[in-house]
Amino acid sequence: MKIRELAQLIEGMVEGNDNIDINGLSGIEKAKSGDLTFAIDEDRLAGAERSDASCILTNRTIRKSSKALIRVTNPKLSFLIIYNTFNAPKDRESFIHPLATVSDSARIGKNVWIGPNVSIEEGAEIGDHVIIESNSSIKKNCEIGSFCRIYPNVTLYENTRLQKNVILHSGVVVGSDGFGYVKDKGKIYKFPQLGRVIIEDDVEIGANTTIDRGSLNDTVIGAGTKIDNLCQIAHNVRIGKNVLIAALCGISGSTVLGDNVVMGGQAGIVDNVTIGDNVTIGAGSAVIGSIEKGAVVWGVPARPIAQTKRQMAVLSLLTKNFRKGGHLGKG
Amino acid sequence: MKIRELAQLIEGMVEGNDNIDINGLSGIEKAKSGDLTFAIDEDRLAGAERSDASCILTNRTIRKSSKALIRVTNPKLSFLIIYNTFNAPKDRESFIHPLATVSDSARIGKNVWIGPNVSIEEGAEIGDHVIIESNSSIKKNCEIGSFCRIYPNVTLYENTRLQKNVILHSGVVVGSDGFGYVKDKGKIYKFPQLGRVIIEDDVEIGANTTIDRGSLNDTVIGAGTKIDNLCQIAHNVRIGKNVLIAALCGISGSTVLGDNVVMGGQAGIVDNVTIGDNVTIGAGSAVIGSIEKGAVVWGVPARPIAQTKRQMAVLSLLTKNFRKGGHLGKG
Amino acid sequence: MKIRELAQLIEGMVEGNDNIDINGLSGIEKAKSGDLTFAIDEDRLAGAERSDASCILTNRTIRKSSKALIRVTNPKLSFLIIYNTFNAPKDRESFIHPLATVSDSARIGKNVWIGPNVSIEEGAEIGDHVIIESNSSIKKNCEIGSFCRIYPNVTLYENTRLQKNVILHSGVVVGSDGFGYVKDKGKIYKFPQLGRVIIEDDVEIGANTTIDRGSLNDTVIGAGTKIDNLCQIAHNVRIGKNVLIAALCGISGSTVLGDNVVMGGQAGIVDNVTIGDNVTIGAGSAVIGSIEKGAVVWGVPARPIAQTKRQMAVLSLLTKNFRKGGHLGKG
Repeated sequence: MKIRELAQLIEGMVEGNDNIDINGLSGIEKAKSGDLTFAIDEDRLAGAERSDASCILTNRTIRKSSKALIRVTNPKLSFLIIYNTFNAPKDRESFIHPLATVSDSARIGKNVWIGPNVSIEEGAEIGDHVIIESNSSIKKNCEIGSFCRIYPNVTLYENTRLQKNVILHSGVVVGSDGFGYVKDKGKIYKFPQLGRVIIEDDVEIGANTTIDRGSLNDTVIGAGTKIDNLCQIAHNVRIGKNVLIAALCGISGSTVLGDNVVMGGQAGIVDNVTIGDNVTIGAGSAVIGSIEKGAVVWGVPARPIAQTKRQMAVLSLLTKNFRKGGHLGKG
Repeated sequence: MKIRELAQLIEGMVEGNDNIDINGLSGIEKAKSGDLTFAIDEDRLAGAERSDASCILTNRTIRKSSKALIRVTNPKLSFLIIYNTFNAPKDRESFIHPLATVSDSARIGKNVWIGPNVSIEEGAEIGDHVIIESNSSIKKNCEIGSFCRIYPNVTLYENTRLQKNVILHSGVVVGSDGFGYVKDKGKIYKFPQLGRVIIEDDVEIGANTTIDRGSLNDTVIGAGTKIDNLCQIAHNVRIGKNVLIAALCGISGSTVLGDNVVMGGQAGIVDNVTIGDNVTIGAGSAVIGSIEKGAVVWGVPARPIAQTKRQMAVLSLLTKNFRKGGHLGKG
Repeated sequence: MKIRELAQLIEGMVEGNDNIDINGLSGIEKAKSGDLTFAIDEDRLAGAERSDASCILTNRTIRKSSKALIRVTNPKLSFLIIYNTFNAPKDRESFIHPLATVSDSARIGKNVWIGPNVSIEEGAEIGDHVIIESNSSIKKNCEIGSFCRIYPNVTLYENTRLQKNVILHSGVVVGSDGFGYVKDKGKIYKFPQLGRVIIEDDVEIGANTTIDRGSLNDTVIGAGTKIDNLCQIAHNVRIGKNVLIAALCGISGSTVLGDNVVMGGQAGIVDNVTIGDNVTIGAGSAVIGSIEKGAVVWGVPARPIAQTKRQMAVLSLLTKNFRKGGHLGKG
């Protein structure tokens, strides 16, 4: 495809020779002649110019270049649009591997691909165009919506419900029993965990993340939400739409997150609190109470980020002055 | 069953019509007519009254209600007792799936259920009434006591020993090699990891938690202990009885925990320390030394909780005063 | 083997009867008569003397003992050398379990052992002397070098490359999609994750650890590096040689670690920073910027360890003085 044709596809403005053929897409470090790459800042533009790339997708304000440019508002998004245009997912033909174990009472849609050693138990419903890869286990009465993709070694406990186009990476566990016990006279009794997990449309869950079933209600992950690897979502948690949760985060029981919340890696939230829409929680934060919508918090415990930074600065200055005064070690 | 009959079962006091038939148990949000639910405080009682529940289990001091009440000392425990009365686990018949691989030298007890794609290696001993679900791997010479339940995709390394009634959720790994190396002249050599993991009676381990085998001794998890999802228990750790460990905690090598210890989520403990009986460690704490029995600690690093809270309060006040004085930014 | 013969093997100096037969190796707590154990300090020497061990491996400066000693520079290393001498890994014969699913287009080396329910997809190349245990999934075009060992329930996504002698413990996921999205007008779009993971020689990866494939470049784990359980290595991360990463650590996207870096447990590093060679990062640290080579850092956020400790000491003193003055609670 010619540079000029790609530019039309993404409503970009070409600078330089728009007649060059583009044969591939790549990151700056691996770009070869004939490739399109993208650069979101001056540093990366310089890198892209040193590469063999034939064309650079960049934004409208960046400097001119010796190479052909396509200027757009959001280069990364435009790169993605071009990628998706040339890499539409192919529909797999219906296939059930002879070493898969599929219950007679399971209902399997059209164009479903089921790999070796998959186990699908009684009453499960698998929608059209679903892919379930090797060694995954789908327990009783799970519902899996159309276009879901389940990578190897995933487990869904009974009654789990995935809506459409959900991606579960390897090692994900959905619907395990929550951490619910009753103590009485020094003994610990297991409390019934009877709810489900409901995962709405377009959710992606990272490798080895765990999502517990509700105790008496359900655990819900809202549409469009993306959860990274090794996160823990406890029983009865309700997460809104388009939430981003980075790796190693933990959300404790019955806590509610609004829409568009962002959590940095290794952050944690206590149980039974409410995090408003559009809240941003910095990496490593320990959230110990509810947070109003739109707040940006950070720290252990999490506070408005300006306050946490100021406390750190003050402590730093007090420590410096303390040192000058020579009190430390004598006090 | 009539309300009056349920009340007798749990030694509760009925207020209101004790002749109503109860057909099911549910949480407040999902309660329908004919259901029993429970309420541990006034707020939840109000919620339960707005629901269609026919009877509310509550404590002895809470206000009167328009609905039939059963008053008990611990409503959650009584709810559990009623639940267990009507939901006794059914014994499964002996079953070994044709796609399970069971070594000829493994010994399999009575009423054992083994799902598809389970692998049981040489010398393993599986007690009576054990359930091992699809895609789990039991390596050589493991011992699994009666009434254990192993969910899908679990791995037990060789020589692991589970006593009775242990529950392992999906993705659990027990007996993996500890993180033990010897450095010499810039190179890192793997040190032998030869011990076992011993898990005593009535332990429950959450999804994707990992427990390493001992290096030269054993790693031991005491009876009645419950560990949540995504925790790491390192080699040679010894955990006492009835300990509760929330998600994403890490316990480093050779550390010893007494009985009844409680760890909040994302807490960590360094290696080679001793945590006394009945210690409580707050969520997100970093424990860097031994802790006396009965202490309640929190923070990074963990200190007695009153001290940590006071330090936070003082830093907050100092920062506020600092701001008033206008020094910050000039200092 | 006689004590004198063992001493020759490790260039040690015998004290006491060098004619005793040694039949086994063990840790202090389990040592029986005829066993060799080791003691790296006076406390452990006392413990070893109370045991039934017949000989104690120790260092050159420790006190004399009633038992036969072999004195060496590094007792733990010498113990390892003796262990390895008597426990050379045995080569397994070629074996592919009848319930393994191996693509016709996969190339399988000599003396490869493939367990039940393993899935090996199209184009995979498995080197000589590789062991792949039950229920592991190897996706398309993976390359696995000679002497690699893959425990049960591991997943390798397509194009993953393991060099020689790599150990992957159970539940490890290598090559899952990175957490890469583009936001536009409130919606979140998945960005292509097209790179590979390359794991160099002699790397060991702990149970349930996840390593994401590169987005447009590759994720690389350098030779000799050891990663503990439940760690997250994000897309495009490059880790140097002989790095040690303890459990529950997270390294964010595109961050670069030099050689010989050490990370304590539950530490995290933000994205797009560079950690120099020989840096040590204390347990629980939150690293929010690049770190110069050789630095030792700790804290939230991570700072030079002396500075973090001083700040903690100053805050502690200020809090104590504050209390004396009685201001807190009135302020």
